[in-house]
Amino acid sequence: MTEKVKIKFPDGAIKEFDKGTTTEVIAKSISTSLAKKAVAGNFNDKLIGFDEPLEEDGKLEIITKETPEGVSVLWHTAALVLGAALKDLYPEISFGQVQETEHGFYIDTDNGKKQVAETDFEKLSQRMKALVKQNLSLKREVLKQADALKLVTGDRYLSELVKDETVNGKVQVYRLGNFTAVSNDVCLPQISNVKNFQLLSVAGAYWKGASSNPMLQRIYGTAFFKQKDLEAELKRRQEARERDHRVIGNELDLFFVDPKVGAGLPYWMPKGATIRRTIERYIIDKEVSRGYKHVYTPVLANLDLYKQSGHWDHYREDMFPPMDMGDGEMLELRPMNCPSHIQIYNHHIRSYRDLPLRIAELGMMHRYEKSGALTGLSRVREMTLNDGHTFVTPDQIEEEFKQTLQLMVSVYADFDIKDYRFRLSYRDPKNTHKYFADDEMWEKSQKMLKAAMDDLGLDYFEAEGEAAFYGPKLDVQTKTALGGEETLSTIQLDFLLPEKFDLHYIGADGEEHRPVMIHRGIVSTMERFTAYLTEIYKGAFPTWLAPQQVTIIPVKNDLHEEYCDRLRDQLLAHHIRVEIDNRNEKMGYKVRQAQVNKIPYILVVGDKEVSENAVSVRRHGEDKTVEISAAKFIQEILADIESYSRSDK
Amino acid sequence: MTEKVKIKFPDGAIKEFDKGTTTEVIAKSISTSLAKKAVAGNFNDKLIGFDEPLEEDGKLEIITKETPEGVSVLWHTAALVLGAALKDLYPEISFGQVQETEHGFYIDTDNGKKQVAETDFEKLSQRMKALVKQNLSLKREVLKQADALKLVTGDRYLSELVKDETVNGKVQVYRLGNFTAVSNDVCLPQISNVKNFQLLSVAGAYWKGASSNPMLQRIYGTAFFKQKDLEAELKRRQEARERDHRVIGNELDLFFVDPKVGAGLPYWMPKGATIRRTIERYIIDKEVSRGYKHVYTPVLANLDLYKQSGHWDHYREDMFPPMDMGDGEMLELRPMNCPSHIQIYNHHIRSYRDLPLRIAELGMMHRYEKSGALTGLSRVREMTLNDGHTFVTPDQIEEEFKQTLQLMVSVYADFDIKDYRFRLSYRDPKNTHKYFADDEMWEKSQKMLKAAMDDLGLDYFEAEGEAAFYGPKLDVQTKTALGGEETLSTIQLDFLLPEKFDLHYIGADGEEHRPVMIHRGIVSTMERFTAYLTEIYKGAFPTWLAPQQVTIIPVKNDLHEEYCDRLRDQLLAHHIRVEIDNRNEKMGYKVRQAQVNKIPYILVVGDKEVSENAVSVRRHGEDKTVEISAAKFIQEILADIESYSRSDK
Repeated sequence: MTEKVKIKFPDGAIKEFDKGTTTEVIAKSISTSLAKKAVAGNFNDKLIGFDEPLEEDGKLEIITKETPEGVSVLWHTAALVLGAALKDLYPEISFGQVQETEHGFYIDTDNGKKQVAETDFEKLSQRMKALVKQNLSLKREVLKQADALKLVTGDRYLSELVKDETVNGKVQVYRLGNFTAVSNDVCLPQISNVKNFQLLSVAGAYWKGASSNPMLQRIYGTAFFKQKDLEAELKRRQEARERDHRVIGNELDLFFVDPKVGAGLPYWMPKGATIRRTIERYIIDKEVSRGYKHVYTPVLANLDLYKQSGHWDHYREDMFPPMDMGDGEMLELRPMNCPSHIQIYNHHIRSYRDLPLRIAELGMMHRYEKSGALTGLSRVREMTLNDGHTFVTPDQIEEEFKQTLQLMVSVYADFDIKDYRFRLSYRDPKNTHKYFADDEMWEKSQKMLKAAMDDLGLDYFEAEGEAAFYGPKLDVQTKTALGGEETLSTIQLDFLLPEKFDLHYIGADGEEHRPVMIHRGIVSTMERFTAYLTEIYKGAFPTWLAPQQVTIIPVKNDLHEEYCDRLRDQLLAHHIRVEIDNRNEKMGYKVRQAQVNKIPYILVVGDKEVSENAVSVRRHGEDKTVEISAAKFIQEILADIESYSRSDK
Repeated sequence: MTEKVKIKFPDGAIKEFDKGTTTEVIAKSISTSLAKKAVAGNFNDKLIGFDEPLEEDGKLEIITKETPEGVSVLWHTAALVLGAALKDLYPEISFGQVQETEHGFYIDTDNGKKQVAETDFEKLSQRMKALVKQNLSLKREVLKQADALKLVTGDRYLSELVKDETVNGKVQVYRLGNFTAVSNDVCLPQISNVKNFQLLSVAGAYWKGASSNPMLQRIYGTAFFKQKDLEAELKRRQEARERDHRVIGNELDLFFVDPKVGAGLPYWMPKGATIRRTIERYIIDKEVSRGYKHVYTPVLANLDLYKQSGHWDHYREDMFPPMDMGDGEMLELRPMNCPSHIQIYNHHIRSYRDLPLRIAELGMMHRYEKSGALTGLSRVREMTLNDGHTFVTPDQIEEEFKQTLQLMVSVYADFDIKDYRFRLSYRDPKNTHKYFADDEMWEKSQKMLKAAMDDLGLDYFEAEGEAAFYGPKLDVQTKTALGGEETLSTIQLDFLLPEKFDLHYIGADGEEHRPVMIHRGIVSTMERFTAYLTEIYKGAFPTWLAPQQVTIIPVKNDLHEEYCDRLRDQLLAHHIRVEIDNRNEKMGYKVRQAQVNKIPYILVVGDKEVSENAVSVRRHGEDKTVEISAAKFIQEILADIESYSRSDK
């Protein structure tokens, strides 16, 4: 009699099947429609191939095309089809890893001096389609390491991969035509499902990510079961590309990074610098008006400061190497500004009358990020943070937290940031021993933060176990252009640093008391915030931030330039950033250029405008041109700037 | 017959004297009045003692009390008297070097655990007077090194000094009472001239300036032949102390430096930061209005950049140690911003139409200064320079130089800086090979600079041989509070860096040409300029720069505070920096405090002011109080700020 295995399904039902049966057979036994959608199984919490035999009792979930796991199985399969097509076209090519990404897959290749180019994609795609059409058979084998090594003899990359991927002495190998891949990932049993795919790009990647290894070519692609899903993904990519601050930053000449001069060390070109300077002045003025005391503190300090703060013990791998000054002094580029602001606090004896004491700074910091993680302005090694530290008595936490939130909400409104949510992070109530030890302080302050949020009527979600070691916090999560989420602003209570630096204030009772420190960042680093704004505005900065606010275009340079000069001087007198485009180009060309550069106001000046002391105004993004008097235009643009270009004002 | 020597005098006369005669005898032979004023000789360009025998023919100048050399001889003598007094009072004391300073002398001492304090100065001065009164005899001997070593046996410092000071096997030793000094300097033969002296201060100083050596006590003093000269010097010192930006910076709470956290790394307190921010915004706006493009560039760069620029070869000892990033990259804190601005220039292909291209930045730099040289804000290790680099065609040099000068003069006027002079530095015409090799460029550009100065009608002096290796320059020399001179602003032509970085622009002819670079700094570093302003204003910053511009003092807190609040809000709405002093203190005390803090406007508000919607205004430095309407006051202070508080506007 055939041996049986007991299979439990997600709905709780348990059925018996012959030992060695496959997910495919089981799916068919349940329903034809399920079998049509099914592509793999999840057996005892492990993804398995559709054709893998089940040899023991266990839980089984059928994975369908509609699930993320199903799509991931398709990506791995499509990558193999790409591999086979590459092998057909370039018989000498070698292969490295095959992997899925967040939105598709890649395969690493080494084609010697004959590099694969994006212009080869059409040819490659045709070949892939041909292979799929003939439904070339995909062979999956689980081999002993020795057998696998024999199979890939002479192939440096695959031999290494066999060793790396071996689990319990065995490793999985796929073969498709003349192509061999070493991969323990799950694929579809047939390649016929690989219909809607797109090759995307090619980039250099070190073998195993180590810069001492050879540079391979990484070919990216994506695939979906349905054509409309592929189209949606390509549209999303296009959209992301249009918003990508690196692309826009280059087109609008805002900044550049040259890894030869320093990876992760951006150079801000004049236009980008104007945006940054406007943000800096805005946030400083806003904070000063709310009682913050802005300071300047050095980017360097004796390493001892970061030993005392704990950064050197807990954060060292993100820090730059210390500099030995030769006279016994070790200087360190600061990774955070908090210890600097503690120096400011400690420079005087503080009384309860001085609290809350709000110290703020545009503080430059340095963090050692791996070069592979560096991205335009959003992941850099040198950054300037809109940083602030408020020192409060424990009783002042709630009120100060509220005031900080109000500041934050007001700033978000000025920048027209709408797509965000608040996350309130508490300590894990089941693991309170993992946090700074002061139960009463935690309980009281967590309640205070929640009360403040409720009081201000703000929506938020609570996250237990997400607090920092040193205190509860509030984060503002914003959507990135690529659909991800990142923390833009934060308010964090800190009970620990005041202990470490033995901070005091003299209370009304004449005794020494310990203050609480509140770390807060409103607009993040200048680098990250500018990247973020570039993406949400798609480069069309509102007038108050735009590097160039107005372009004046004379219809005929020789006839109208005098009037244009006068107009420009009038605007300059109001500190409006204006330029005249008097190049020897056609007017239409100049208008299009101004649109490409996303300049908020285009003023066209011809005979009529000169005779009426007027301008023809076209706003960026609008089709219509309006003729108004020069005086009225100045009034309007000033109101626009004054209101931070907000439509609700 | 006695041997003779031929002595030539400054007036050309030549006389014969017995060999071995002294300057003293010669002076007496000329005239009694000269002999009275004479204190030493200058024989063949070497200062010699009054009693030193002349053994050969030569030129002799009689040094009198009225010359700087004469005073220097007195200082050395007074230092010996101080040494003898110290030895009398502390028989166990040891001595190090005896030296003159710019304004007096010092002597290094080691009194073991019994440190000499400034409170001992009275006792010491009395003892010095007693020694002078008894005209204790001063013995000068020139000994062979071996004999000198025997004389100071067992004295560590003097033994080392004997070795250091030995010239041609011989060394000079002075003895006064029980005190012995090793010094080749010239002193008076009698101490009776040491009448008008003053002990000044005591400070720590490492033996021979090396931090690995023991710390000695350095006792400073000064002396003059005439009591009125001593009094003038003490007054100058008092004045300098009152202007010293370190003293004022501490009193007004502008900044502090804590060598434990980092020598030469200032922390700007809120008030100092407000001054700095105001300067920064002022100069950026001014420069932007003159066509400068402000940028932000990183403080770090790959060390290769400074190898290419030549800084690493020629400027290394002023640079911080490079940081090894572990992946083969060496990062360096920049000592100058020029290479960064060259990166900006080189990021695009430039045409002659783009020139002059004016790149500017508040650029943070790091320079390794010896810890002994660090001084408050004026000599630091981290600094932010008002830096700018203009790239021009050779033909544009004169016009651009003129424009930069006009900017400079306008800025000086706004800051009310009057005590300065222009120095135009050329290459040394006798050593042209020591400079960048392009004779035509030098000749032409030097003429252009001179023509520009003349054209603008500016006074200047010319300094041949003071140019940089890379080009001629103009410096603005300002007086410091201590009466010295320092360079505040500079305009330097640079023919070299464009070569080193192979810079080009496309000319009207379509060909590549080499631009000239102009380095220029107007208001120097934020650190040095703030120090300078603090000293010239004696801390009484003009309204537009003052950290707090207005203080409002209610006559009675409870009765008048509401009105004060309204008044403050009105001022704040005009961005005026105002605070209400509502402490429970007497009104007179608050007024005095505001004066001590040098706040430009004190507004006193009582019944009368409330009823008339007025304020009683007292300007800093004026005695009279004026009552005017609140509205009029706001008008006046805004005009004051708008005009940079200049009396000529």
